[in-house]
Amino acid sequence: MKYGIVAFPSKKLQDLANTYRKRYDPHFALITPHMTLKDSFDASDEEIKSIVQQLNELASKHAPLTIHASRISSFFPATNAIYFRIEPTEQLVVFHKKLQEKVPFGNEKHTFVPHITIAQKMTASEHDDIFGQLRMIGVDEKDIIDRIHLVYQLEDGSWTTYETFRLTGAE
Amino acid sequence: MKYGIVAFPSKKLQDLANTYRKRYDPHFALITPHMTLKDSFDASDEEIKSIVQQLNELASKHAPLTIHASRISSFFPATNAIYFRIEPTEQLVVFHKKLQEKVPFGNEKHTFVPHITIAQKMTASEHDDIFGQLRMIGVDEKDIIDRIHLVYQLEDGSWTTYETFRLTGAE
Repeated sequence: MKYGIVAFPSKKLQDLANTYRKRYDPHFALITPHMTLKDSFDASDEEIKSIVQQLNELASKHAPLTIHASRISSFFPATNAIYFRIEPTEQLVVFHKKLQEKVPFGNEKHTFVPHITIAQKMTASEHDDIFGQLRMIGVDEKDIIDRIHLVYQLEDGSWTTYETFRLTGAE
Repeated sequence: MKYGIVAFPSKKLQDLANTYRKRYDPHFALITPHMTLKDSFDASDEEIKSIVQQLNELASKHAPLTIHASRISSFFPATNAIYFRIEPTEQLVVFHKKLQEKVPFGNEKHTFVPHITIAQKMTASEHDDIFGQLRMIGVDEKDIIDRIHLVYQLEDGSWTTYETFRLTGAE
């Protein structure tokens, strides 16, 4: 089965992201707004049991993450996805690194650029138009991530939460 | 904020439900296939903390639920929703009753008819056509529900998981 690890921000920040996603993101319906912590990877039923143990351990050590969605950026030209940039604080970068160590499944496809996608799969000219507009509007929202979610993908592409892990530690 | 309590069945049963939902259920995109255990209710941030405690207690007492999606039924004429009927076993009915006692928020709008919706919001004649077809196809799937999900609703109607509770007890 295909799994991923994400953090859902507060309802307020999700609602804000959805005002853009409903217009500009065809993946809108597959999952609610999120920050990906680990890209999708395959794991067997046995493997996922050990992953759950590792995530329980990780979550019990780490404190809630303070995040700051500070501006609207684009991955262009790598892809034309537009996103809320999340500041890569030391706390967040260390947490992400520990997560990869605990769950060494799949490949890290790219360096960690924490973000919440708000638009994707546009043509190049749509991208330029929309990015120009959104960059001007910007974003400036702080939030607390106090739990992470292990999710799995259905055949139609949508994601269901398998288990949540509350960040209850001190690190 | 608006919350609900649901059980997501196995990927296999969700995929099967989605083969119908993608065609016949306009709520398809708002949440993946599920069995509702508690209809939506409002709760404050303070209230939800105590609800989470109650659900932890409940989940630690109850064993995973064996469910059987045994046939395709309709709520017509109350509504024209079509669903996988889940057999109301004593285990499931008792669990549902305890859940209502632990989380006495909102109103029980109707008696508990465990089900997974696969079609809704059709006209009366669409309902008759589709129900006629689906009833013939039927369903016969057994499954184990080993966790329940507390979910909350975003402004666009979609649902995000707030927390999962694994059924780890013996009852």
